[in-house]
Amino acid sequence: MPDKVRIAIDAMGGDHGASVLLPGAEISLVRHPDIEYLLFGHSDVVEPLLAKMPVLKAKSKFTHTEVSIRMDDKPSQALKYGRWKSSMWLALDAVKKGEADVAVSAGNTGALMAMSRFNLKMMEGIDRPAIAAIWPTLKGESVVLDVGASIGADAAHLLNLAAMGSSMARVLFDIEKPSVGLLNIGVEEVKGLEEVREAGQMLREGQFPHFDYQGFVEGDDIGKGVVDVVVTEGFAGNIALKTAEGTARQFGQYLRSAMNRTLMSRLGYLLARRAFRTLREKMDPRRANGGVFLGLNGIVIKSHGGADSEGFASAIDLGFDMVRYELLAKIGQSLARDRAATQTAKQASGAAS
Amino acid sequence: MPDKVRIAIDAMGGDHGASVLLPGAEISLVRHPDIEYLLFGHSDVVEPLLAKMPVLKAKSKFTHTEVSIRMDDKPSQALKYGRWKSSMWLALDAVKKGEADVAVSAGNTGALMAMSRFNLKMMEGIDRPAIAAIWPTLKGESVVLDVGASIGADAAHLLNLAAMGSSMARVLFDIEKPSVGLLNIGVEEVKGLEEVREAGQMLREGQFPHFDYQGFVEGDDIGKGVVDVVVTEGFAGNIALKTAEGTARQFGQYLRSAMNRTLMSRLGYLLARRAFRTLREKMDPRRANGGVFLGLNGIVIKSHGGADSEGFASAIDLGFDMVRYELLAKIGQSLARDRAATQTAKQASGAAS
Repeated sequence: MPDKVRIAIDAMGGDHGASVLLPGAEISLVRHPDIEYLLFGHSDVVEPLLAKMPVLKAKSKFTHTEVSIRMDDKPSQALKYGRWKSSMWLALDAVKKGEADVAVSAGNTGALMAMSRFNLKMMEGIDRPAIAAIWPTLKGESVVLDVGASIGADAAHLLNLAAMGSSMARVLFDIEKPSVGLLNIGVEEVKGLEEVREAGQMLREGQFPHFDYQGFVEGDDIGKGVVDVVVTEGFAGNIALKTAEGTARQFGQYLRSAMNRTLMSRLGYLLARRAFRTLREKMDPRRANGGVFLGLNGIVIKSHGGADSEGFASAIDLGFDMVRYELLAKIGQSLARDRAATQTAKQASGAAS
Repeated sequence: MPDKVRIAIDAMGGDHGASVLLPGAEISLVRHPDIEYLLFGHSDVVEPLLAKMPVLKAKSKFTHTEVSIRMDDKPSQALKYGRWKSSMWLALDAVKKGEADVAVSAGNTGALMAMSRFNLKMMEGIDRPAIAAIWPTLKGESVVLDVGASIGADAAHLLNLAAMGSSMARVLFDIEKPSVGLLNIGVEEVKGLEEVREAGQMLREGQFPHFDYQGFVEGDDIGKGVVDVVVTEGFAGNIALKTAEGTARQFGQYLRSAMNRTLMSRLGYLLARRAFRTLREKMDPRRANGGVFLGLNGIVIKSHGGADSEGFASAIDLGFDMVRYELLAKIGQSLARDRAATQTAKQASGAAS
């Protein structure tokens, strides 16, 4: 376990910029005094803010750069003007050079992914990156991946997702052998996308000492917390994640308008306000802010662009945990062992066919 | 507008069978006295129930059959033992023969779809069926399709879904020109599945007088009610639907446990109980029960297998509306006109490339 955690921050990312991100960094620093920050951004923006935040300033090393990535540029455009010099690139580069243990950005997702791949490169045996989300469930939390790094996935990629996701669940939830499910549109073996069925067969038949494969799960099983890790390709995963966010907001709005309708309901709300606060905290999307980029030679955390300081602090906390409990090393170990298991399974199914 | 609506009921479907379905049929009959039922099922089960329900019995014609389809059989198995003679088949066959205007079943989805295709056949110009769901939104309701009839969709099929879904929205919501969005993982034109991008281009460039194409929508836009019709292929659509159902249930459970925690919160609940009832009704999945099979030469409604009587009544109500407002004829008209528009768009893009 490292005695300090060095976190590189792209201080120019997100919808609100440094004035929201730096207070977020300070919140996380108070919770984790062994953080050291490397901040990247424009001095005109960052230095005046830092001057007012002595606690943060004392634990930060600031690097000025003129260039920051716009939120709505295409990845190719961002790479063109932002490579080597933007605040996003420099934060990733600090991880690459070993000066930071993790990079956190609230910036343009596509650009961050493209720069991460370009700079950090993929881990051995992984072709494509994934974004893992932490999903609040009735039982606690689950890891869901991929939620949008790439579209489509063959069976081998789905197996890699199972290995990476279960490593992350082991680190986050402190479970020796996380349970894993494949997202599908039915629990029967004959249903669903061909790649999903193929991955299901390999997972059933192979030996995976790191996780416990439970079979197919459906959309409504995610929120129940039926498994610790839900594996899916990025198109369906992104739609599932955003649909759940939308439904949660919808419910919140129904609840607010119901409680505001009459004098009696407003009075009832006042009496039960602590219960409502608990509920709000449970449903607070800021608690689970932060997607983890997996499959790269380095840890990168993507915060929601619209996150406030509390939300950005959650994303930093997540990065802190990933470093502290050595996610990267554990993923590497899992992949190596699972690769051996997959080979065995492939040979077995090859011999059988 | 037909003066009576003849509804064929598979009385043996669902998790709970006729003892739940027949009371549901009676609920819907009370709401719509111009319904006439054709009931198909085993006389040992159905007749004793009917004897206790004189209102329903007076408006029903019962046909006995020994065979009913099990909930967990594969479609191929169900076809083998259930074709020509099961309660499910006979309900569909009544539509085929013109004796009923719509068939409603709470039975095995895969079997119902397979039998529907086999018996009713696809509409001209439609290769694959779709299931359309009615999705409660902050603005009212939207039609979402396909939610699981088939996996994957090329651009042409997505265009057919837009035509069929907008016809259904016109019938259900009484909107002259429903708005249509394509479900994707980003709103930018360059993002997402290739087929979705291709369909997006055709929809942007073609002339579709029946609906108003609004571009890509994301998962969280569905619950906002951004468009009247959300078009997606069946894998992602099914996962979106089930994830939303799961999230709604999750929220309900959080709310219940929060309100039960302390004396004050229970008291608050009592004072606000009418507000909570409104909320419960808004979130009640039974209100929006019933998937509509589209693309067939006949209307088939699939109720949730686990629906109670009230839920099954909603599915029948939906079938009633579809007949009363002549869904099938309107879909036929839309498809014919849109086909002309698509041809024009194809020729234009063919000429441009």
